Amino acid sequence: MEDCSCRDENDLEIDDNKEHGVSMLTEPFLVRNRKNNTSQVAIVGANTCPIESLDYEIVENELFKQDWRSRKKAEIFQYVVLKWTLALLIGLGTGLVGFFNNLAVENIAGFKLLVTNNFMLKDKYYQAFVTYAGCNVVLAIAAAALCAYVAPAAAGSGIPEIKAYLNGVDAPSILAPATLFVKIFGSIFGVAAGFVVGKEGPMVHTGACIASFLGQGGSRKYHLTWKWLRYFKNDRDRRDLITCGAAAGVAAAFRAPVGGVLFALEEAASWWRSALLWRTFFTTAVVAVVLRSLIEFCRTGKCGLFGQGGLIMFDVNSTKVTYSLPDLLAVMFLGVIGGVFGSFYNYCVDKVLRIYSIINERGPSFKILLVIVISLLTSCCSYGLPWLSQCIPCPPDLAEQCPTESRSGNYKNFQCPPNHYNDLASLFFNTSDDAIRNLFTSGSEKEFHFSTLLVFFVAIFCLGIVTYGIAIPSGLFIPVILAGASYGRFVGKLLALLSNLDVSLFALLGAASFLGGTMRMTVSLCVILLELTNDLLMLPLMMLVLLISKSVADIFNKGVYDQIVKLKGLPYMESHAEPYMKHLIASDVVTGPLVSFSGVEKIGNILHVLRVTRHNGFPVIDEPPYSDAPELCGLVLRTHLLVLLKGKKFTKQRVKIGSEITRTFKAQDFAKAGSGKGVKLEDLEITEEEMEMYIDLHPITNTSPYTVVETMSLAKAAVLFRQLGLRHLCVVPKTPGRPPIVGILTRHDFTPEHVLGLYPHIKPHK
Amino acid sequence: MEDCSCRDENDLEIDDNKEHGVSMLTEPFLVRNRKNNTSQVAIVGANTCPIESLDYEIVENELFKQDWRSRKKAEIFQYVVLKWTLALLIGLGTGLVGFFNNLAVENIAGFKLLVTNNFMLKDKYYQAFVTYAGCNVVLAIAAAALCAYVAPAAAGSGIPEIKAYLNGVDAPSILAPATLFVKIFGSIFGVAAGFVVGKEGPMVHTGACIASFLGQGGSRKYHLTWKWLRYFKNDRDRRDLITCGAAAGVAAAFRAPVGGVLFALEEAASWWRSALLWRTFFTTAVVAVVLRSLIEFCRTGKCGLFGQGGLIMFDVNSTKVTYSLPDLLAVMFLGVIGGVFGSFYNYCVDKVLRIYSIINERGPSFKILLVIVISLLTSCCSYGLPWLSQCIPCPPDLAEQCPTESRSGNYKNFQCPPNHYNDLASLFFNTSDDAIRNLFTSGSEKEFHFSTLLVFFVAIFCLGIVTYGIAIPSGLFIPVILAGASYGRFVGKLLALLSNLDVSLFALLGAASFLGGTMRMTVSLCVILLELTNDLLMLPLMMLVLLISKSVADIFNKGVYDQIVKLKGLPYMESHAEPYMKHLIASDVVTGPLVSFSGVEKIGNILHVLRVTRHNGFPVIDEPPYSDAPELCGLVLRTHLLVLLKGKKFTKQRVKIGSEITRTFKAQDFAKAGSGKGVKLEDLEITEEEMEMYIDLHPITNTSPYTVVETMSLAKAAVLFRQLGLRHLCVVPKTPGRPPIVGILTRHDFTPEHVLGLYPHIKPHK
Repeated sequence: MEDCSCRDENDLEIDDNKEHGVSMLTEPFLVRNRKNNTSQVAIVGANTCPIESLDYEIVENELFKQDWRSRKKAEIFQYVVLKWTLALLIGLGTGLVGFFNNLAVENIAGFKLLVTNNFMLKDKYYQAFVTYAGCNVVLAIAAAALCAYVAPAAAGSGIPEIKAYLNGVDAPSILAPATLFVKIFGSIFGVAAGFVVGKEGPMVHTGACIASFLGQGGSRKYHLTWKWLRYFKNDRDRRDLITCGAAAGVAAAFRAPVGGVLFALEEAASWWRSALLWRTFFTTAVVAVVLRSLIEFCRTGKCGLFGQGGLIMFDVNSTKVTYSLPDLLAVMFLGVIGGVFGSFYNYCVDKVLRIYSIINERGPSFKILLVIVISLLTSCCSYGLPWLSQCIPCPPDLAEQCPTESRSGNYKNFQCPPNHYNDLASLFFNTSDDAIRNLFTSGSEKEFHFSTLLVFFVAIFCLGIVTYGIAIPSGLFIPVILAGASYGRFVGKLLALLSNLDVSLFALLGAASFLGGTMRMTVSLCVILLELTNDLLMLPLMMLVLLISKSVADIFNKGVYDQIVKLKGLPYMESHAEPYMKHLIASDVVTGPLVSFSGVEKIGNILHVLRVTRHNGFPVIDEPPYSDAPELCGLVLRTHLLVLLKGKKFTKQRVKIGSEITRTFKAQDFAKAGSGKGVKLEDLEITEEEMEMYIDLHPITNTSPYTVVETMSLAKAAVLFRQLGLRHLCVVPKTPGRPPIVGILTRHDFTPEHVLGLYPHIKPHK
Repeated sequence: MEDCSCRDENDLEIDDNKEHGVSMLTEPFLVRNRKNNTSQVAIVGANTCPIESLDYEIVENELFKQDWRSRKKAEIFQYVVLKWTLALLIGLGTGLVGFFNNLAVENIAGFKLLVTNNFMLKDKYYQAFVTYAGCNVVLAIAAAALCAYVAPAAAGSGIPEIKAYLNGVDAPSILAPATLFVKIFGSIFGVAAGFVVGKEGPMVHTGACIASFLGQGGSRKYHLTWKWLRYFKNDRDRRDLITCGAAAGVAAAFRAPVGGVLFALEEAASWWRSALLWRTFFTTAVVAVVLRSLIEFCRTGKCGLFGQGGLIMFDVNSTKVTYSLPDLLAVMFLGVIGGVFGSFYNYCVDKVLRIYSIINERGPSFKILLVIVISLLTSCCSYGLPWLSQCIPCPPDLAEQCPTESRSGNYKNFQCPPNHYNDLASLFFNTSDDAIRNLFTSGSEKEFHFSTLLVFFVAIFCLGIVTYGIAIPSGLFIPVILAGASYGRFVGKLLALLSNLDVSLFALLGAASFLGGTMRMTVSLCVILLELTNDLLMLPLMMLVLLISKSVADIFNKGVYDQIVKLKGLPYMESHAEPYMKHLIASDVVTGPLVSFSGVEKIGNILHVLRVTRHNGFPVIDEPPYSDAPELCGLVLRTHLLVLLKGKKFTKQRVKIGSEITRTFKAQDFAKAGSGKGVKLEDLEITEEEMEMYIDLHPITNTSPYTVVETMSLAKAAVLFRQLGLRHLCVVPKTPGRPPIVGILTRHDFTPEHVLGLYPHIKPHK
């Protein structure tokens, strides 16, 4: 208890990546029990890995300041040119990948459906099922094998991880080239395998990976780096590139350039500047142009089974929209349904994910097994359920062939006699894009039975829930749009007497309401849907339905991406401070032992500390004779220490040799390397003799880290931490005459787990 | 020189609102010559007024902390309900005002044109001109008189002022009820008077004024405040409301709800959060619904001369867009023209504004005289120039009447024989909305001569330049759209052989290019134009043209709103630090004498300091016996001091009576009053006896102000200051044992004028 009382005086600590190693520290450091020894790990794929915080602070050490001041105009010009070139390349790359994805899926799925359809036309229903399910399982295994063995990080949507990255949490290999490769092909195989998954989330992840890959300048291993790219070797510029990439991904997936920008802004990015808006906009414009020209090229029929659809994917712009009060009430009703279903969907996804994570943890073979089971389930549903439906005679005067013979087609004959089609089969037994297009066609052109829509909705709702979380790249947008459009159309048919709106518009609004209920985005969803459907007159109705569904769903739980971020254990920081933080002050939450260095420190000490702690920042304290009293010189980063130690500029005596170090090293030696690429502790070869020598830390010490006084409320400190995107925030004492630093706050200290673990009596009331 | 050398030790200072009074301070405080004694003033209307910085810092003094902790759930609920109610009311109010504006302009201008037209049909050209010019001058005088005598702050666009407000600069009376009144009616009269001005900028200002008015809960003078509104008596919540208001303004002006949100985000707001996106979106959705229902109501013919146009103002969605490489080249060419013209326009506006400000400064009568001159010039142009044009035979099979007899109409007979019309008159002799609609009609429907377009472009370009800056509420969007659309159509006609695009699309792209060249917005302009014209397929072309025109124009100068902000002397802070700031440290720029208080201070001292300085924040330093050594207790605000002094909780002795003060006062007594409404120094009545007494400042001292060390680079300090929206940033010494505060940085210290005034050798290279 005596130890505890002196806590305010001596219990200084650093806790970034609080790891097991810390407990090995020598006894005097350990003043208080580290009750809350959670490591900073997260689930990536199915494995838990240590994660790293990103750092957007401007490091002001001698080396970097020298670099700044000597930076010539030509270098600034190089930087600007490169910035825009990279934006262009990200746009081009993502556009091409998006098109390739589309092309491959349409061809593979189209071919699969064509073959199955041919069997069915010959009444060989058994063979048809075997072919269909067989194709699906093969494709599913291909996708799952890639995910399980090559890059587990590529499973799932990818949007939560990108969201966390842009919030400052770097999970390893989430942006690695292997992940990019698996994401592209896994997504193609997964979607072509007929799973109820979309390509939108994976496209966002792909865009981000492409941005990261280009910003890295390829791989250093293969000597593919480029000198100019040194400007981008820091977290800030990487963040900007990845924001562009995420926007480009949405733009490519939905062919919605403005929607892409807004998505990046509303959902993905945590920090935003006007200049970034401008660059992101450029990237998505490039994507739009690339897609448009390639689709124009495909119009000539050179793309195999590649389907219809220009830049506007689901053109509903045929019916004139006018609406009155009953219509508005119907739309509000739809919004409420969307909110309820949306939050229920999120609840189920969360539960299923928890179960799946147990299965997936058991190894790659279990992952693949799970994928096979779900694939068979999906095949059974999409092949079996249409048998429930009655046959409908083909409408006369149809531009399209009915029943369909060639390609994937939209009037499936299925088990029906000639000149009849099965309306449930045109939804189930089809690509998702075509199914959505069918649901969005106007009521006069295509009629669906009540039972058809109901069966389809229930099946898609359940399949969507059980599919997300298996080891394939899986987007959430398409299942949600499908389910939403089907219940929207159902409600539209139901209220046909009350409302004058066409059922196609109800389908669109249904999709909007369900999207609003699950994803909880507003402006970006609105614009994406407008760009998807090319119907600006729907805007006020769409806004209304989104507002209502989001508000209703917010009563029950959080958005699906936020849920997944939390489930994966990524320490996401909200832009506002939590209310309970107002009851605590900064010094309340800094825990664990503080390790600090002298301005000129012994090599042995540094190595020992680096070995036994996982801290990423250490305060440097100048003591007599270098100052009159102990004073905080600044903060030194682990990565910088490692580079400095590798350079071996040691001295026998405790002397300052700063100028020599600044002459030997260049700022770019200390630039942040790509994830997992910097100098590692094991790379250092320090002799016994060197262990007794000293090194001057001044040149690499950030002399002006951001500081707060210990009495500042945690809420206010959190705002500072979050707004500036910090990794370390120094807490200094209020009164003079005490050690110059109380502790360091890191991202972990602001997490509810940590804070509420320390103070269980504080209730996190919302 | 000796004084200078001890600067680091003693030259502590505060400089917010650096005013003349400072030099009256007693000599010992004045250590260094205040070379740079510029007052914080700006031009509002034509007068220079002192401005105030806004403060978004969380003030953590005892009173406020007590308030936080005691805040009940019910109060949080009240706050949330009120927040959304206010958003709803802002939407409703702005929607109604926007509609009223439209209605009034259409009716007044329509009537004016109708009367003039009737004279012309009877060949009474002289009477027609007199009527026309007379109406214009009368309306112009009405607008100018309102601006000159009632609210000078209502002149001009208003967007620069709102932009500055949202950046943290509060110019007095810019959001006052009188300004709101004048802005609404001045804009109606100004637009109806046929000036080449738009209603868009004024609508943004109006929206912001409505938001401010509602947030204030009316006027305290008339006992119209409401208890619940106390939650909004701080700069943060006001900022959010005004952001919503600005977005609602754009939504109402262009009937573009998504565009409004994006405008607020891209151009207006300096700080942004996802939560605000959501609320702003709600507000603009309300505006859209209000406008739509009112326009629907007007379809029944109950709105007099109110014209056509649903929620989509200029519907060009008739031609199918397909484009090839030559089209793209033509569009790029248009972008370059737009960039060059746009920057030239900005250059001219800047020059003309400088000349006008000299005239306007001379008094209200000069302002009105200037308005009359410009009004006559405009009348002469719009009546005189159409005579240059040849008569065109009316096209056969026209739905519209030709030549026009009733209402404003679009086929002006003018001087032509029956069954002919004058194409230049259909542009000039019309409301701006109709002129734009004419320019956007497809080429097959309406043909304009080359000469017509050229004359119209030159006239509008010049009139637009000379009109902005006169004492009427004047938007910049409409002149720019008009000029852009005319040269776009001109280029389209010129390149008709090369390009397959319709001239109407060229007109639209021309308008986009000129807007991009002047305003330098991207995403928001793009979305506004899409919502205006309902043509999503134009998106990639529009993006291309905006990107090029902005890039080209950025070579020459800044955007027109940034220019005006600078011209008006509003100390706008960019989100990035200027390059020259990297060469300076925080202590380099803190100038002037520092005035600080003791924890328990003599009333006389406080009053003296309040009287002779204009500072808004004072450091409180605890000295023995309240602490072992002098330590920084915190920061106290002028407004809080005034409230405290008014309460007269004085003591005879130098003792701490904190708890008594916290019992007497409530946090809401210290809540920030509306602009110019708080306790003033003159309101205090302190007796001679009381002057010798003491007061305890601890309960109102913000004990955790944000601090930086003196050696931090100015660039890094600027990032902190700007990101957190501070008013005061304390600079503390690096080494212990010195006075606990070096100085306080304010907005003024980051302005180039101040910094480059102190260090003229530093070049502000871009």
